Amino acid sequence: MNAAAMVKTSVDMVKERLLDKKRALARINAEQLEQLLHRTIDPVATKSHYTLVNGIAASPGAAGGIAIFDVKKATELGEAGKRVILIREETKPEDVPAFFESAGILTSRGGKTSHAAVVARGMGKPCIVGCSDLKIDYQTNTCTANGKTVKEGDMITIDGSNGAVYLGDVPTIEPRITTDFKTILEWAQKAKKIGVRANADTPEGAKFARSVGGHGIGLCRTERMFNGRDRIGLFVEMIMAETITDRKRVLTKLGKLQKSDFVKILKAMEGYPVTIRLLDPPLHEFLPDPEELAGKIRTLEQKKSTKEAASAKKILKRARELAEINPMMGHRGVRVGITYPEIYEMQIRAVFEAAAFLAGKNVDARPQIMIPQVSSLSELVHIKKIYDAIKKEIQKKYNTKLRVNFGTMIEVVRAAVTADELASTAEFFSFGTNDLTQGTFSFSREDVEGKFLPEYLEKEILGRNPFQSIDVGGVGGLMEIAISRGRKARPKMEIGICGEHGGDPNSILFCHDSGLSYVSASPHRIPIAIVAAAQAAIRK
Amino acid sequence: MNAAAMVKTSVDMVKERLLDKKRALARINAEQLEQLLHRTIDPVATKSHYTLVNGIAASPGAAGGIAIFDVKKATELGEAGKRVILIREETKPEDVPAFFESAGILTSRGGKTSHAAVVARGMGKPCIVGCSDLKIDYQTNTCTANGKTVKEGDMITIDGSNGAVYLGDVPTIEPRITTDFKTILEWAQKAKKIGVRANADTPEGAKFARSVGGHGIGLCRTERMFNGRDRIGLFVEMIMAETITDRKRVLTKLGKLQKSDFVKILKAMEGYPVTIRLLDPPLHEFLPDPEELAGKIRTLEQKKSTKEAASAKKILKRARELAEINPMMGHRGVRVGITYPEIYEMQIRAVFEAAAFLAGKNVDARPQIMIPQVSSLSELVHIKKIYDAIKKEIQKKYNTKLRVNFGTMIEVVRAAVTADELASTAEFFSFGTNDLTQGTFSFSREDVEGKFLPEYLEKEILGRNPFQSIDVGGVGGLMEIAISRGRKARPKMEIGICGEHGGDPNSILFCHDSGLSYVSASPHRIPIAIVAAAQAAIRK
Repeated sequence: MNAAAMVKTSVDMVKERLLDKKRALARINAEQLEQLLHRTIDPVATKSHYTLVNGIAASPGAAGGIAIFDVKKATELGEAGKRVILIREETKPEDVPAFFESAGILTSRGGKTSHAAVVARGMGKPCIVGCSDLKIDYQTNTCTANGKTVKEGDMITIDGSNGAVYLGDVPTIEPRITTDFKTILEWAQKAKKIGVRANADTPEGAKFARSVGGHGIGLCRTERMFNGRDRIGLFVEMIMAETITDRKRVLTKLGKLQKSDFVKILKAMEGYPVTIRLLDPPLHEFLPDPEELAGKIRTLEQKKSTKEAASAKKILKRARELAEINPMMGHRGVRVGITYPEIYEMQIRAVFEAAAFLAGKNVDARPQIMIPQVSSLSELVHIKKIYDAIKKEIQKKYNTKLRVNFGTMIEVVRAAVTADELASTAEFFSFGTNDLTQGTFSFSREDVEGKFLPEYLEKEILGRNPFQSIDVGGVGGLMEIAISRGRKARPKMEIGICGEHGGDPNSILFCHDSGLSYVSASPHRIPIAIVAAAQAAIRK
Repeated sequence: MNAAAMVKTSVDMVKERLLDKKRALARINAEQLEQLLHRTIDPVATKSHYTLVNGIAASPGAAGGIAIFDVKKATELGEAGKRVILIREETKPEDVPAFFESAGILTSRGGKTSHAAVVARGMGKPCIVGCSDLKIDYQTNTCTANGKTVKEGDMITIDGSNGAVYLGDVPTIEPRITTDFKTILEWAQKAKKIGVRANADTPEGAKFARSVGGHGIGLCRTERMFNGRDRIGLFVEMIMAETITDRKRVLTKLGKLQKSDFVKILKAMEGYPVTIRLLDPPLHEFLPDPEELAGKIRTLEQKKSTKEAASAKKILKRARELAEINPMMGHRGVRVGITYPEIYEMQIRAVFEAAAFLAGKNVDARPQIMIPQVSSLSELVHIKKIYDAIKKEIQKKYNTKLRVNFGTMIEVVRAAVTADELASTAEFFSFGTNDLTQGTFSFSREDVEGKFLPEYLEKEILGRNPFQSIDVGGVGGLMEIAISRGRKARPKMEIGICGEHGGDPNSILFCHDSGLSYVSASPHRIPIAIVAAAQAAIRK
């Protein structure tokens, strides 16, 4: 039975008094509900279209458009109203403007946590990654698989729900939130015990999340905001700044942009908490790839573009300085906040400025500030001092009292083990179970999913992919230690989860049983989370 | 007071009945004892020599020799009896033959866990790493720092105990194990409660460890044995094998070499346990660096060496296939053992073959097999089946009973949390606290020690470098969970530690208090460990 039929029959059977509401909710396959929120390929039409190749289904939904291999061209054509499928070997933060303008994204490299996959999921754009049979040639602007070549401008269609790439423009079916679906969500909303919030970084995401029942934002990733076309240049300038004065000058500009972002998001979520996570990725992620840059420099030198080459060389030098052997465990999150305090200062000030502005407009804004990658209390205390000083400054400036909760991610193993200490300063916790799973298993998700993990699942060394469903015995055990130690120090503490597991039904069951306050999921997975949370609550 | 004076006065005061033995042991600064085991720079002589530059002190001891920038040349000159200081930007496993032939190693990149540092420490060779002010030019075979240039063949002297590089041949002082030092070690040996073993991979290392009081080997890294000049080529051939038949053919040759290695080491440690850890690093570590290889290919193509270029290209392709974004958390240890079972089969067979051979010679050999990077019971059970089959096969072949304990490293966080499960199959545990610290903090040691860790120590965010001294609150907490859960499932289980912390006095205190069975340390740190263990035991 497809999702629409499942929803309809459940509501019908309650109407006909064949089932009560609880049983009607219990029979729903929560996972399938996502089908109802995305465009799907018309199943009849696929038969008349050639399947070019298959990749990893990274972000659900179907989309057709013209094949474009160049980021700048994709942005321009998208702005001009064309439907574009952006095809790249892999993507980088500087490519994000093209994501906004594309109907879908297709890459030949990377796994489910590659840049392309994560950004596309956050935007709700269809995306296929790790399509390793697809050979892309940037010189000729073509790609080839199974003997067929796609040229720039040819129509293709991707199905991000199953990883299939079709030649031509395959008809797709528009999603529709039916009355029956709304009824199911209402019943589930009443039955569930834990909260459901959204991982959203834009006002649009926040509005959509709210429209499908999300009560607040559990994770607003501030670095996403640096990827806008008007910001990435400024952010790179900040990284390249040679003096602290230069860096602060650029940060002041970025701070104004962040404030206006926060104002819009807080407004969209009025009346509900919005958890704003300060900068998390390592700085080198915002610079171009060193190998590509070296190639660009060679080209510029051949063309005798001396000035451009010199400036590219400076960036290359900085990118090499910042490069890391294991970036996942390197200089990022609060570690950047401590070594470059002016960055977190700017972000914290932008939150308070936005809160003060909205208080003046009588908007019920409820921002919370969350620190990533924390491994010890002293890191948190260090940032809390900055927070306290800025709070005082802004309250004085606007002659008002502001309430902005201060909390921490629990995504580093040591944070889970020392949760009682952290709870002395943190007013709330949020589990980042993606990183926590990486740390607990010593698995780099980007490496293991493409290397040995499939074999582990096949040989049943692991029963499930721990990145899809919480590993109850290991990661779950650490979460339980953190919850009990945290609440011992601060009873009734708000503790949520904002990793991708927040939208997985099995994991939601575990979150309910462990006494979490809420789960936070991608906007498109909120209905799944609401139904799964209800199922956990009504289960015997 | 220097170490020699400290030792002498302690013994003298006991002789003169001014102190009892316990107080005499308690007043010793264990850390300083290492001075007595290495060549030191003659303090008078340094005044007349120019200090060229300073780097990170990576392996203690002083050595002078001629500056050589080429690995092959260093090996040849060393074999010809010259004193050589090998100077490289960084080193790779394929460079290890040159380590054997060099008096000391100096690199411009990397931290205390870089390849050069770890290998040099294991061999007891003086080494300085991360000397970032030293600019090396492989084209002209020179290096420059602070305006001075050292040419190939110029004499330089390095002091691996403090990181100083001197121009010229600075006189050094030979170490001497005095009667007083032996007396102190005897007293400590009697007073301590926990065992002290060695991290050693060669018969020489084992013999030296035994001579200074090491009772067994806690960590024998089998991959080190693949780095010998006669093996690295075979090992690369194994990685490049295109069929399983080809791979097994090469593995049979490697198996014979491993058996003879094990025979020698087990003999050198007769009567004591020797813990043999199966292959740990990712396979790509044994291949040349892709960027260097690409450069080499360009040169070969210019020279029209078509055949060599083609073979280098094949290796480059494989190196790129195996490359990882976060190698520390990737395809290594038991994960390689499961996906390429023939490698672990070869190693396990070599251990049993060596054990059977020595049993036939009436040598009391006590090998133990240890599995690295384990995160779940099913991994261990999977390898245990291979172990059981080979044990049966060899016992039948030699018509004998063999006792080879089967155990696991506890170096992945999940292994610590699920220690009760692992103890159902593992007969012993050994904490790999270097990796466990990396996993607990999400710190990549190679990155953080060169980036933010110094600032963390300076700002007192961390009281101590957790890679030097066990982080009692976080890593120690996990160890205590693992010890109590492990011994609950298997009472009196042998549990040791073989990370570098095993040679650190503060960490040894923690190990004693936690009820560990033994610590395992670099041979040159064994006297320190013995005295520190005694101090832990006699402390009030």
